[in-house]
Amino acid sequence: MVKEMLAGVRTVRPLIHCITNYVTANDCANILLACGASPVMADDETEVEDVTSICRGLSINIGTLNSRSVPAILKAGRRANALGHPVVFDPVGAGASAHRTETALRLLKEVRFAVIRGNSSEIRTLIAGSGTTRGVDADLADQITEEKLEETAAVVRRFARQTGAVVAVTGAIDLVADAETAYCIDNGHPMMRSITGAGCMLSAMTAAYVAANPVHRLEAAAAAVCAMGLCGEKAFGRLGEAGGNASFRNYLIDAVYRLTPEELEQGARYRICRP
Amino acid sequence: MVKEMLAGVRTVRPLIHCITNYVTANDCANILLACGASPVMADDETEVEDVTSICRGLSINIGTLNSRSVPAILKAGRRANALGHPVVFDPVGAGASAHRTETALRLLKEVRFAVIRGNSSEIRTLIAGSGTTRGVDADLADQITEEKLEETAAVVRRFARQTGAVVAVTGAIDLVADAETAYCIDNGHPMMRSITGAGCMLSAMTAAYVAANPVHRLEAAAAAVCAMGLCGEKAFGRLGEAGGNASFRNYLIDAVYRLTPEELEQGARYRICRP
Amino acid sequence: MVKEMLAGVRTVRPLIHCITNYVTANDCANILLACGASPVMADDETEVEDVTSICRGLSINIGTLNSRSVPAILKAGRRANALGHPVVFDPVGAGASAHRTETALRLLKEVRFAVIRGNSSEIRTLIAGSGTTRGVDADLADQITEEKLEETAAVVRRFARQTGAVVAVTGAIDLVADAETAYCIDNGHPMMRSITGAGCMLSAMTAAYVAANPVHRLEAAAAAVCAMGLCGEKAFGRLGEAGGNASFRNYLIDAVYRLTPEELEQGARYRICRP
Repeated sequence: MVKEMLAGVRTVRPLIHCITNYVTANDCANILLACGASPVMADDETEVEDVTSICRGLSINIGTLNSRSVPAILKAGRRANALGHPVVFDPVGAGASAHRTETALRLLKEVRFAVIRGNSSEIRTLIAGSGTTRGVDADLADQITEEKLEETAAVVRRFARQTGAVVAVTGAIDLVADAETAYCIDNGHPMMRSITGAGCMLSAMTAAYVAANPVHRLEAAAAAVCAMGLCGEKAFGRLGEAGGNASFRNYLIDAVYRLTPEELEQGARYRICRP
Repeated sequence: MVKEMLAGVRTVRPLIHCITNYVTANDCANILLACGASPVMADDETEVEDVTSICRGLSINIGTLNSRSVPAILKAGRRANALGHPVVFDPVGAGASAHRTETALRLLKEVRFAVIRGNSSEIRTLIAGSGTTRGVDADLADQITEEKLEETAAVVRRFARQTGAVVAVTGAIDLVADAETAYCIDNGHPMMRSITGAGCMLSAMTAAYVAANPVHRLEAAAAAVCAMGLCGEKAFGRLGEAGGNASFRNYLIDAVYRLTPEELEQGARYRICRP
Repeated sequence: MVKEMLAGVRTVRPLIHCITNYVTANDCANILLACGASPVMADDETEVEDVTSICRGLSINIGTLNSRSVPAILKAGRRANALGHPVVFDPVGAGASAHRTETALRLLKEVRFAVIRGNSSEIRTLIAGSGTTRGVDADLADQITEEKLEETAAVVRRFARQTGAVVAVTGAIDLVADAETAYCIDNGHPMMRSITGAGCMLSAMTAAYVAANPVHRLEAAAAAVCAMGLCGEKAFGRLGEAGGNASFRNYLIDAVYRLTPEELEQGARYRICRP
């Protein structure tokens, strides 16, 4: 399954419009190039509609949200929706400030997302804020654990059904689900938490995978999550005894650059979660 | 002394709110992760109070100052002051433009800083502008030299007394002082001047050290300066014959990631300046 | 010829004011340091005139253009013009949105540029928009090829004459021309297209070369293009079998740091295009 998704990115070479934060913008641009796509970073209200029109996908990340961002994101999102381009949403820091939470919830109402990708806490904030939760049982745990996997998968599938998006919750174990099916993914390495931008890069790369494989949104998003996790494992393996998080970041992007569809197929560790 | 400061960072793992420039924001985030802290970059007026409230320390850097920054910095700074969170100030480029100098001086009046860290020229601008200097003798030299060390230490201590902050002046020789005591630090490597952001990264890391060791502000700031200098030495040692400033930057962050409290204790070269 | 240009940068160590995008700002700052210059990134209207006054050259890049940028660029550009400082213009993404194209054309009217550097498509947009083209023959091809080299060189020289700038069009083959003479440069490596910011870094570095060699604008710009291409070749040569675009970016900056005038002289591959 995942092999074809990466092959698609390498064939289509999709141009991805990113409205993103200034902390990890460079890493997001380089990971898009690494996987076979091309980035265009543009966030001004005056031009986002033009820019998104010449692209195949849109990646929205609210990492360093500012007053200029919101109207630009709305314009770009609506235009991408009108054109049928997939839009990926990374609700960075939802829950960390009222403004960020409100903005994330507003975007959820006004833009139709192909994929929503965040960590457990961010997705939980979206679920709570959009009134999806039905009591404590339905809540998302702080960490996805093997014990609570099926229960958590049910929560994520329900949120996917409500939003019409594929939902990817990443952590030690990753879940990628649409309304019907949830993939559980075991790739990854703890060192990915030691760099800034692992999540941002994954969201940008997911936009590339989905834009190149638009009729297989769920599989494309799951393949992107597998690819990032597998490259984290490879990057860690390359780290010598003097290597730290800066080298790890570089090796992670390098691994995405080098990754072949066959390696991804062999290295991907995913399974379908049964309810 | 310095060993305990780094051990504190690794134990407390403080969340640090950074309002910083877009040039070195990624490096600042990664160095915070490297030393054992966690970064949150957020600079919009609408959310900085919320964000700083969930953190343990605030790092303010005016590297790419803009009209949006000043009200956000003031709001975050006042909130952090009200909560008793340490605030570190990096007056990047004070003296390079009237606007930057005025902003730095205004912040000095309206926010209570735990640490002020800059190069000689920046700190001199603050001293001059805030009316601390008493004639030429009291001025800060362009470069801190061994010959003028005690005289310079006296100027820095006086500025520390006036502001209530620990003041760190970094260069070939570094001085870190409060009103009573000045540490002189000999760690570091000239190659640190060949990368952008060595100062910004040090300021962010100082916020982590001070936030994790709030009752030892002076020692914590001095330990951060020793750690950065020592890691600069280690990074240079790792540079092969093809290595340049890009590899040096990566190795510097790597070294911060790898640094143990024991290595810091052994490698730190500091002394108290008399009188 | 090119040897002296790099030697000039190392001797003069020019301070370069950059108004640039947040995606590649860090790389631009580090490449300026690598080549022997120093960067100041400042883009707020309130301070750009002060900042550009203490510098020797100005580099303008519209990569992440926003509403705040245009008045700041105009103020800085006019001040630099008044002071006789060379201004380099990188019209990133001209043609990708109406706003970016219009802004690029407006800047072309209101600021006098020493060098304009872009890819074929960006320069073509400027030529078309400023009414320079005279029918299809005069247009710039998408890719500069050996077959169309002289024809293309004539188009570029004409645009140089019209604007009074040295024009650098970079791609597989690079052309650097003033009204009279066009250099064709064969240095470079296809992998440079796999990183973000190769063009931005070259523009920033060109500002350093021209600021340090103001009476040899054409030769200085051509030398910068040769140097970047040669360092791309060196960076590729250093890439091991696990290396990807992140390592390539680091090695490229490293190579610029290590490059000596003699190596540049020996490695530069340029010729004058006739007629």
